[in-house]
Amino acid sequence: MIEANFIEPVQNLIPLVEEKIRSQSEGHHQVLGAALSHLLSSGGKRIRVAVTLLTGLMLGADEERLVTLAASIEALHTATLVHDDLIDGALIRRGIPTLNAQWSPAATVLTGDFVFARAAKLASETGSIEVMHLFAETLAIIVNGEITQLFSSHGIVSRENYYQRIYAKTASLFETATTTAALLSPVSADVVGNLKRFGYEIGVAFQIVDDILDFTGEQATVGKPVANDLRNGIVTLPALYYMESNPQDKDIHTILNSNFCDEACLERVLNSIRSSGAIQHSLREAKEGVDRGLATLARLPESRERQALTSLAKYIVSRDI
Amino acid sequence: MIEANFIEPVQNLIPLVEEKIRSQSEGHHQVLGAALSHLLSSGGKRIRVAVTLLTGLMLGADEERLVTLAASIEALHTATLVHDDLIDGALIRRGIPTLNAQWSPAATVLTGDFVFARAAKLASETGSIEVMHLFAETLAIIVNGEITQLFSSHGIVSRENYYQRIYAKTASLFETATTTAALLSPVSADVVGNLKRFGYEIGVAFQIVDDILDFTGEQATVGKPVANDLRNGIVTLPALYYMESNPQDKDIHTILNSNFCDEACLERVLNSIRSSGAIQHSLREAKEGVDRGLATLARLPESRERQALTSLAKYIVSRDI
Repeated sequence: MIEANFIEPVQNLIPLVEEKIRSQSEGHHQVLGAALSHLLSSGGKRIRVAVTLLTGLMLGADEERLVTLAASIEALHTATLVHDDLIDGALIRRGIPTLNAQWSPAATVLTGDFVFARAAKLASETGSIEVMHLFAETLAIIVNGEITQLFSSHGIVSRENYYQRIYAKTASLFETATTTAALLSPVSADVVGNLKRFGYEIGVAFQIVDDILDFTGEQATVGKPVANDLRNGIVTLPALYYMESNPQDKDIHTILNSNFCDEACLERVLNSIRSSGAIQHSLREAKEGVDRGLATLARLPESRERQALTSLAKYIVSRDI
Repeated sequence: MIEANFIEPVQNLIPLVEEKIRSQSEGHHQVLGAALSHLLSSGGKRIRVAVTLLTGLMLGADEERLVTLAASIEALHTATLVHDDLIDGALIRRGIPTLNAQWSPAATVLTGDFVFARAAKLASETGSIEVMHLFAETLAIIVNGEITQLFSSHGIVSRENYYQRIYAKTASLFETATTTAALLSPVSADVVGNLKRFGYEIGVAFQIVDDILDFTGEQATVGKPVANDLRNGIVTLPALYYMESNPQDKDIHTILNSNFCDEACLERVLNSIRSSGAIQHSLREAKEGVDRGLATLARLPESRERQALTSLAKYIVSRDI
């Protein structure tokens, strides 16, 4: 199994990262402890945690600082999910109820804020101003991406726009995970640059594959309705490629122009995209990105962690598609 | 006029702080620029900005770093207000519409997040890990205070509880403003400790006076309904003192037990508190706090800025009460 392969070198550290996040509620109201436990229980692959830890271990960073950094990255990710789910009105994530499904909007906003605050505190505990600065910049990039999406009129879509969107949404945090782990390590600026590139490339690929899964996945696997993005008028890479080669398709323009595309219309678009080759095209693009990332990684000396990061990058583009 | 007195030594720097905050939207979606301008236009006395700048100038901090720090403190304060107003459903603050009065909850949550992110970035630009750490801790304290209030059952009130609440809500940020300004200055840990105490005391006094104004102010002055706290079942210092000397008053217990206290009931409680001496008692307590703060300030050498901080502290307990 590919997954076990990349987790193995850090499997002792991941529980320490989770414990570090959990302990952030100490001395605060008990509902915050309950919220953190709930958020951690939703599991997920902790892929950002693994990327951070593997990068830092590979480059010789101090383990304790790395655990703190990984906790900060995962907490930042978690905080953005809390507010996202509230905004989207999502009731389920990874098969378990979201916070906003159980709590008032007020409590959900504040819990997200608290998790941001603890993520920022953890970042400051790495003792690196550069890490702190990147942490704050990344949060701004993520939020700016969401604001942009919220205020964007439908109908304006391009690959450039798509790449900006997925950078803000996903790749920026992967990039920050690898960059900050490198910054905590005794390596040159060149090596930091290589890792930054690697993080960017796997982050982009991760989001492209996520977007592909929205077309190919079954509801039970993805944990959310299939073609969720299209339903919300969000055009991702497979739809973009489909549109480029089928500019005459009326249904997709209905979606783009925010007009109502009923279930039959959605079904037609979904089937057209699935059978068009647009998904294969998108996957190829993700794989090319991973290859570029692996090429920069290959400049570093061989190590157990480099091997694991290679497996992790390949796993990203081979998830149940 | 007392106010002009304390602003004067920093009146050239305050516009730089505002400009620094305004510029944080550069390179981001235009609605964020509009939001920042709107938030800055609501004015306010920038008392946290003045406290930060005066403390740092008094102690010999670098002006540019101080401006950055003050922008960070004010942005943090602003971000918490954005989420507070959303949660409270407040439509007006300082006489102008709140963000949530004009925008969707989603846009308001994200704008608050963006302002948090920029506040964190500004804190990191001071180049001090200690500042960054205190910044993050203060955000957690503020949010934890709000969560605690949200989840607290009415009926449990004590002075200890009141002081915890106003520390979280207000005094913690004043304390952080003076402490971080001192941390950026070439002074001993003792001096940092003195300034921390000063910030704490004026912050507590500031909130006590705010709570008093909720009883004594007219709607036009305060910019929100008089006895707003009581209406929401929030018991502040004047109500606490009144309860201690009038344990038999049924109306206030109605409020405490979350039972409905109609306008006539509210009017009775308001008049009882106003005529009871509880307000004078509370004001005396605020003034005693300011005196303790001034005593620690008096240990520092005489200077123009020390004089201004003294005026500022006195102003806090002499606002239109």
